[in-house]
Amino acid sequence: MQRSCQAIILAAGQGTRMKSSKPKVLHQVAHLPMVSHVAKAAINAGSQKISLVVGPDMDPVLKAVRSIHKNVQSHQQIERLGTAHAVLAAESDLGQPLDDVIILYGDTPLVESQTIASMRAALSNGADVVVLGFRAEKPDPYGRLLEEEGQLVAIREAKDASEDELKVDFCNAGIMAFSGKIILQLLKRIDNDNAQKEYYLTDAVELANRSGLKVVAMEAEEAEVQGVNSRLELARVEATFQQRARLNAMTEGATLQDPETVYFAHDTEIGRDVVIEQNVVFGPGVEVADEATIRAFSHLEGAKVASHCVIGPYARLRPGADLREAAKVGNFCEVKKAVIDQGAKVNHLSYIGDAHVGAKANIGAGTITCNYDGFNKSKTEIGAGAFIGSNSALVAPVIVEEGAIVGAGSVITKTVEANSLTLTRAKQMALSNWATKFREKNSKG
Amino acid sequence: MQRSCQAIILAAGQGTRMKSSKPKVLHQVAHLPMVSHVAKAAINAGSQKISLVVGPDMDPVLKAVRSIHKNVQSHQQIERLGTAHAVLAAESDLGQPLDDVIILYGDTPLVESQTIASMRAALSNGADVVVLGFRAEKPDPYGRLLEEEGQLVAIREAKDASEDELKVDFCNAGIMAFSGKIILQLLKRIDNDNAQKEYYLTDAVELANRSGLKVVAMEAEEAEVQGVNSRLELARVEATFQQRARLNAMTEGATLQDPETVYFAHDTEIGRDVVIEQNVVFGPGVEVADEATIRAFSHLEGAKVASHCVIGPYARLRPGADLREAAKVGNFCEVKKAVIDQGAKVNHLSYIGDAHVGAKANIGAGTITCNYDGFNKSKTEIGAGAFIGSNSALVAPVIVEEGAIVGAGSVITKTVEANSLTLTRAKQMALSNWATKFREKNSKG
Amino acid sequence: MQRSCQAIILAAGQGTRMKSSKPKVLHQVAHLPMVSHVAKAAINAGSQKISLVVGPDMDPVLKAVRSIHKNVQSHQQIERLGTAHAVLAAESDLGQPLDDVIILYGDTPLVESQTIASMRAALSNGADVVVLGFRAEKPDPYGRLLEEEGQLVAIREAKDASEDELKVDFCNAGIMAFSGKIILQLLKRIDNDNAQKEYYLTDAVELANRSGLKVVAMEAEEAEVQGVNSRLELARVEATFQQRARLNAMTEGATLQDPETVYFAHDTEIGRDVVIEQNVVFGPGVEVADEATIRAFSHLEGAKVASHCVIGPYARLRPGADLREAAKVGNFCEVKKAVIDQGAKVNHLSYIGDAHVGAKANIGAGTITCNYDGFNKSKTEIGAGAFIGSNSALVAPVIVEEGAIVGAGSVITKTVEANSLTLTRAKQMALSNWATKFREKNSKG
Repeated sequence: MQRSCQAIILAAGQGTRMKSSKPKVLHQVAHLPMVSHVAKAAINAGSQKISLVVGPDMDPVLKAVRSIHKNVQSHQQIERLGTAHAVLAAESDLGQPLDDVIILYGDTPLVESQTIASMRAALSNGADVVVLGFRAEKPDPYGRLLEEEGQLVAIREAKDASEDELKVDFCNAGIMAFSGKIILQLLKRIDNDNAQKEYYLTDAVELANRSGLKVVAMEAEEAEVQGVNSRLELARVEATFQQRARLNAMTEGATLQDPETVYFAHDTEIGRDVVIEQNVVFGPGVEVADEATIRAFSHLEGAKVASHCVIGPYARLRPGADLREAAKVGNFCEVKKAVIDQGAKVNHLSYIGDAHVGAKANIGAGTITCNYDGFNKSKTEIGAGAFIGSNSALVAPVIVEEGAIVGAGSVITKTVEANSLTLTRAKQMALSNWATKFREKNSKG
Repeated sequence: MQRSCQAIILAAGQGTRMKSSKPKVLHQVAHLPMVSHVAKAAINAGSQKISLVVGPDMDPVLKAVRSIHKNVQSHQQIERLGTAHAVLAAESDLGQPLDDVIILYGDTPLVESQTIASMRAALSNGADVVVLGFRAEKPDPYGRLLEEEGQLVAIREAKDASEDELKVDFCNAGIMAFSGKIILQLLKRIDNDNAQKEYYLTDAVELANRSGLKVVAMEAEEAEVQGVNSRLELARVEATFQQRARLNAMTEGATLQDPETVYFAHDTEIGRDVVIEQNVVFGPGVEVADEATIRAFSHLEGAKVASHCVIGPYARLRPGADLREAAKVGNFCEVKKAVIDQGAKVNHLSYIGDAHVGAKANIGAGTITCNYDGFNKSKTEIGAGAFIGSNSALVAPVIVEEGAIVGAGSVITKTVEANSLTLTRAKQMALSNWATKFREKNSKG
Repeated sequence: MQRSCQAIILAAGQGTRMKSSKPKVLHQVAHLPMVSHVAKAAINAGSQKISLVVGPDMDPVLKAVRSIHKNVQSHQQIERLGTAHAVLAAESDLGQPLDDVIILYGDTPLVESQTIASMRAALSNGADVVVLGFRAEKPDPYGRLLEEEGQLVAIREAKDASEDELKVDFCNAGIMAFSGKIILQLLKRIDNDNAQKEYYLTDAVELANRSGLKVVAMEAEEAEVQGVNSRLELARVEATFQQRARLNAMTEGATLQDPETVYFAHDTEIGRDVVIEQNVVFGPGVEVADEATIRAFSHLEGAKVASHCVIGPYARLRPGADLREAAKVGNFCEVKKAVIDQGAKVNHLSYIGDAHVGAKANIGAGTITCNYDGFNKSKTEIGAGAFIGSNSALVAPVIVEEGAIVGAGSVITKTVEANSLTLTRAKQMALSNWATKFREKNSKG
């Protein structure tokens, strides 16, 4: 029988060292708020319910978590009296607890769902409390996990540790899992009889030991449990995320010419034999299919790129860009909310927004779809095989029918008939020697 | 008397871990297939002839090597029965062997011609077999090179090595050189009497020792003999190539503001006192002369940049761009198959293709040469000292004679007379208060 | 009572290994010549006067230092006879020395003013000579600082050092401070009785000890005292500068998505809650106010960006760009010497130069201000709330009055009346079936 699970995410910290007007857990990693990463991991590990502990005025935090999962209860922690106190802010959610209760942190965003699932598996195998640890490269500041014959007997704070205990490099990551049956009674026994007068969640370990409960430690990579308290740490967590994502893309068969310069979002999907050149940024919501090429200096957000497309260099695909098989978008081109159909080309210095560009159509350099009049957005339809001369403006709503040619430099405001040549053009006039006189006048001055 | 030399390049591996539909050795490093790098090194070290061992359906591999050197014989290795078996696929080329025979690998692209030349020098000095080794940072997986008084007595696989032998960090790189006189008889004596039932080229070392031949080891940098079996390893080899190229450019007198962000191709040529800002990508075929400046975010392929030119930021030079002394190409400009003559300026948002821009001409922002009609490319000629007003379209074939001025926003379809002011322009019309009414209408709705 | 101070900056080195036609100390770090960094540090540490020792033909070096501070005396060192000889080139400035004399190097640009201030504090506390040292990661080539009970007794060159002395990793950085009272007599006692026949400034330490003077060593980070003799070392110093600047920006409350890809100039100012995406280059003279966002691939020089502005991706702000509250400049846009007023938008493919764009005005894609006629620059005024249709050219000098709408593709040469719709447009004409025939003709050929 499958066990039920709830996650408690502690997210009340102000993050003073961030020097930000925004709650700390809303700072983003790979274009997703940190707290949403944590919620996602919890859900992917099988949580049915999330209890979110926030500080005052943190509605946007609740909103960020709700965008991941609907079943979220938010609780305010007004006073800041320690981690156990924070968890107990969600006490009402623990009245009828689910089988497994996971304690997570909104500022520790890289925890993986497999790790949480492993902690749950330990509960399922009879543990009452599971503590996540890591081998610290520099263990100095961390609480040490002290084990005896597979039982975690204590979490010893560095300042209280003996010389021998300080040699232990297995450190407390903060993340814990409890059997739902015992969590509430255990937490309520934690007191604040210490120098800081705080209620520490870590005390649960010794209390559980005293009650003869089974307490175990599990190990994660240090990088996975990095917390964020400053912008520097935020940058480090972002870097770790990117390393993971780059390695994953390469393992799955994409070439990254310089992996360090390719930036993925939390949800980027990349196919096989995709080549990604240097300096490419993926915002959220991008899918790139097999054998597409993303050239240097390209920027993609909310875009679909089909097989054999070639994008860039310097292409910007914005939300709703939908490139079909073997379409091309070249340098200094922006595409927004537009289908670029099979084999169509938008190669130079163009803006294509709110449009459908038909199969094999060719959009000349400097073409602009004039989609906005200050109030409304309107659509441009360009038929299959059409050829738009360079430097043309297509004033939407407007239709260029299939096979039509639009002359260079035209401003198109009315339907262009299929297979016609359509243009707007004033007569070419010359004032002989005007330039000579102009130069003479100016070089005297 | 100069010794003759042939290279055998083993390139039959499928490269399953690449997860690619393309043969592994065709994946590129610095815009050249790996196998072509190897062929280039062989040729530069004096090889007259290349024997290429490929798998089935690998004609494109042969083509890649032929583009480096004409004298290439291709041989198919159908079954995969070990490295010695692979070399013997080229047996017909060894019937009348040249003096020196070098065994190289299509997936070990950074081997340098000097290294091969040194191996040849050892043959010339009396060695019969030369094995290339490297000091491995993590020797665990590699065969160890065991030397006694300058003689290489064995290559010991890690699994067969004694504890003392495992301490040796001098490891087998795979690359070998043989005296042409003995290679064939030696290889034919290799058997497959081992667990994998494969014919190992490394066995040649002990066989040669038993026959009293002189076998020596030579040392290369580990980075030089990195092999590629995955996209991650491909990225590492690319990174090593780039490090070499950057260091070389700086040593020769170029400033790289952040060397890690400048990407060279296999054939990039950079002069003295060239300044290269951050994030610059060189595709193949670029030459940059002394004292030119390449500003940030520029992308160059197949382009010549003369002295004192200033390129970028965000300049894209495509094949055939030929910038003469002190020309300028600025932001969001693309130049393709075009001469930009001495002191001419293309500074903003322009596309110049199939064109000649005369000396000191000034191309206004947003100028487009309309060089393509869907079928043919035509040429734009712009005379010396001409001034093209912004947002103009020059519909090729077309000539702007010297000293002419083209008015802003013109579409030029006929010859522009020298020193004239030429323009196409419709009359400026105003509908008073139209905007007020338009806004009223839209803000009601 | 405040002590007076003068700095002697040694800048005569040719820098042969730079392979440059430019004096070494004029090579830039963070867009400022190295020697100017040194002068700035000296001034910020309280120097009233700078003595600059240069080689022949180095007027540009003097100019670079004068741009930092007016009170600079330049002295030529013709022969190159050692560091003490170089300092004595400035002997005339030491006739009536100030209280503190600091010896600095034009090719050691990262020395911080606090470090110089600390050296001065040591003089103020009774030291006669202060030598700056660093803990070297690889001490091999450096002179070692030998201390006894707080007194620096000698600087021992590596080649003269005993085995025990070689174990010392505290090395000479070259930078020294002298009490003005004793410097001249001390320097004059230095002889050239050594293999190279040079006068070494380091000899001052033993001479001072012999005279019973107080000599102390102070410690700096190795990175701070890196010298530059090659382009590679120049790149390393630049990298150190950037690391400092990035850390500082993050500590002050800016988010850098990938800090390694953001490049600051020596004078960049960044506010709180500024978000800087990947690959952003700041040239000199940029100020970014709180809560602005600088998106990927943007390039800023001499620009002001007010609160809540959003810049980029691919925005280029050039000198004189002045963006007011919540203005937006989007992709492939260049802004030069132009105010973009509150809430105004320049979102796509535009060039705005020598202009004022009024509050909440909307500049359509592909708009160009035609500000240059080959001789003069003229101004474009765009009123508040105006709407410029896409692909328009505004031929300066020209005024678009407030609330006006300019039709797409117009070339505006005369004042656009407030709240009017103004446009230039030729009639749209169609040649039916022209395209069909054109294709037929071309596909036969």
